[in-house]
Amino acid sequence: MKRTLNIDTVEHAGEEVLIKGWVRLRRDHGKLIFLDIRDRSGILQVVVNPQVSENAYKLASELKPEYVVKIKGLVKKRPESAVNKDLETGIVELEAQEVSIVSKAKTLPFDMGAQDLNLELPTLLDHRSLSLRHPKQQAIFEVQAALLEGFRKAATEIDCREIVVPTIVRGSTEGGAELLEVGYYTHKAFLSQSPQLYKQMMVGVFERVWTIAKAYRAEPSVTTRHLSETTQLDCEIGFIEFEELLDMLEYVAFAMIGHAEKKCSHIISQFTKEKVLYGKVPRITLQQAQEIIKKEFGRDQTREKDLSPQDEVDVCQWAKKQHKSDFVTVTHFPAIAKPFYTMPDPKNPTLSLSYDLLFRGVEVLSGSQRVHDYEMLLESIKNRELNPDDFRMYLMAFEYGMPPEGGFSFGLERVTMKLLKLANIRQASLFPRDMERIDERLSL
Amino acid sequence: MKRTLNIDTVEHAGEEVLIKGWVRLRRDHGKLIFLDIRDRSGILQVVVNPQVSENAYKLASELKPEYVVKIKGLVKKRPESAVNKDLETGIVELEAQEVSIVSKAKTLPFDMGAQDLNLELPTLLDHRSLSLRHPKQQAIFEVQAALLEGFRKAATEIDCREIVVPTIVRGSTEGGAELLEVGYYTHKAFLSQSPQLYKQMMVGVFERVWTIAKAYRAEPSVTTRHLSETTQLDCEIGFIEFEELLDMLEYVAFAMIGHAEKKCSHIISQFTKEKVLYGKVPRITLQQAQEIIKKEFGRDQTREKDLSPQDEVDVCQWAKKQHKSDFVTVTHFPAIAKPFYTMPDPKNPTLSLSYDLLFRGVEVLSGSQRVHDYEMLLESIKNRELNPDDFRMYLMAFEYGMPPEGGFSFGLERVTMKLLKLANIRQASLFPRDMERIDERLSL
Repeated sequence: MKRTLNIDTVEHAGEEVLIKGWVRLRRDHGKLIFLDIRDRSGILQVVVNPQVSENAYKLASELKPEYVVKIKGLVKKRPESAVNKDLETGIVELEAQEVSIVSKAKTLPFDMGAQDLNLELPTLLDHRSLSLRHPKQQAIFEVQAALLEGFRKAATEIDCREIVVPTIVRGSTEGGAELLEVGYYTHKAFLSQSPQLYKQMMVGVFERVWTIAKAYRAEPSVTTRHLSETTQLDCEIGFIEFEELLDMLEYVAFAMIGHAEKKCSHIISQFTKEKVLYGKVPRITLQQAQEIIKKEFGRDQTREKDLSPQDEVDVCQWAKKQHKSDFVTVTHFPAIAKPFYTMPDPKNPTLSLSYDLLFRGVEVLSGSQRVHDYEMLLESIKNRELNPDDFRMYLMAFEYGMPPEGGFSFGLERVTMKLLKLANIRQASLFPRDMERIDERLSL
Repeated sequence: MKRTLNIDTVEHAGEEVLIKGWVRLRRDHGKLIFLDIRDRSGILQVVVNPQVSENAYKLASELKPEYVVKIKGLVKKRPESAVNKDLETGIVELEAQEVSIVSKAKTLPFDMGAQDLNLELPTLLDHRSLSLRHPKQQAIFEVQAALLEGFRKAATEIDCREIVVPTIVRGSTEGGAELLEVGYYTHKAFLSQSPQLYKQMMVGVFERVWTIAKAYRAEPSVTTRHLSETTQLDCEIGFIEFEELLDMLEYVAFAMIGHAEKKCSHIISQFTKEKVLYGKVPRITLQQAQEIIKKEFGRDQTREKDLSPQDEVDVCQWAKKQHKSDFVTVTHFPAIAKPFYTMPDPKNPTLSLSYDLLFRGVEVLSGSQRVHDYEMLLESIKNRELNPDDFRMYLMAFEYGMPPEGGFSFGLERVTMKLLKLANIRQASLFPRDMERIDERLSL
């Protein structure tokens, strides 16, 4: 007998079907056993009645959570009063005729049956390959998959070509610290801090490119918004100027998040009832942001070169109130605070044509107009006391003719976190890496 | 004036447009200058006539290959006799009225103007950020992008969910050597040899998953078909048995390659006139493959545990001739030669339910039915003298109930290489990593 997915049973009322899945829940109600069976399509309620099958009932009474089972039975429409609106299959249930156990499971270390999985973060992560099976943990990564799909769609719509960039590199992208070192045969190499230099080189080839790439940083502290291994969603675009870049990044942000919100509305509403606000995104300079923080929130940050986490929260609160927008684009960070490839503002070269996109209180994207003139780029590398020899192949792309260009990079885990209003970025990564953890906690 | 893409000029005959791009070629023909201008949409011929604009002519005569330019002009239909069928824009040309230089380029180190870029591999790679601009180099990665898209489409069609897996791991996936070591804060970690263990864990969560992930191997020798950093296209599927897995992998292979072949037919035909043969894929065991090699090619390989490169070539030649198929699925490799998670064949446990897919003479995919029973898996790990403690989170997924499952993994660069009949896998990676090279050659 061919397997029927749980979700498809609603179209087979009155028919016999075979389902396969995991036992999510067993409830014994007097003479009946109720099972919630989970498969890739969702959850289905199964009723096991000894009067239908004594044998099925006997087997069902042995079932425990996460047992893998096959169940043959009759799909029955539920009476109106018994319809479960929280289940996509809630208009039917399966009356079991045959139950068989495919794989057994050890007794669970915590309750997986409740609607929420109320675990401390370390427990959640220590049992990651189990805890992810909880529907609400699963749900986070369904949303993440939709964000990835939304990004690809949007990047393709703005005519970017997909590229695959390497992660093993010879030196640091941005001249910073926090590099992870790799033993590469008899040499020393590093893990890439971002796909930045490669996507820029590829502008000379495809003019517009996108990539979904890993980025690595040995963050020296544990925060709720940093990981050592992240997933970046990047675009880089040739023949473009600053204002168009802002148009583009806001377009991609709206398209990506909008796609996930639409595709996963039923899931997202389990995490937050607040819909994303897509009001016209306010574009403010860092200086203006700092003035808003001073005026509206009474904190003087005007001497800072960047936004602090609290600044980001405050500016977003202002944007939400004043512009009905969950996003703010902050521009013109000090040139000195930005990497060598960032274009200085021609009107005031102490500032730069850089930008961050804030979303619900956190920076989820950064980018800039780039320096595309070879001589200027060489100068900029030297000014930061970096060695041009370390950037030879990168510089080659600019020696041989590069148009004005710029780009941006989303952090996938951050977007996921803020869309679902999760408290910690680790919840938005299937297997998060940080200073203290590679799957299991590292001994300190 | 708004920019028009080269490809769109064909719809604007008789109109004035502005184009932007790179000079691919300049030819001086008596009193006229002909330019081939490249942008992300393709190549357009520009004619610069001093009688139309003396100034444009003066500027055009300064142009060199890879200069970035803006050109305003009049789109003119070419007379029938002058149509260039090799160009998508070949029915028109642009008569230049204004030429301006956006960025200059250094004199090229080799000729980029010819239809083929005839460089030795080291030269090609030493100048990667330039050489990739050659239309035929570009083309390879247009095909690669189409393969990626085709894979995602096919994996989604078979109802797999996208997942993002980590690349920094604590130990070796398959217990092999050839690991790249990472300094991880104060600890030692490694780069993942494959997404294998993580995608298997995720079967417990989503039942069917796909991922496009990096895989790293410190290959100790330089061959034409190995890289240190590759891109793997992976599926892992729960509630499935061996024969269905073979159906699935052949489906995904056909769908992915078929998608690229359809989308890029004009490109692929520049590399090879041979269309991919999609005859019913012969499924043979390793033993049968070795018998074919002995009988048809006179080489006795029957004592070997795996196929050698020459074996793969021979078996594919047989499949092409006998089955009109560019593919062969070879199954039942010795259990001992396969990783611990490979299911032994119940009929003969010295063999395994494993498979490789060969395509045009090279293995482009491998996979297997997996051991899904916890006790059996534990035993298998111990039998190979691996430490179960190193697989704790992985084993947890099986302790808590796992259905029969299996999967497969394509090597993106290998598929690209064989589809285009490239001689070396390095040509199928934008920035290939091997023992001797990270962008530039490493000093040995």
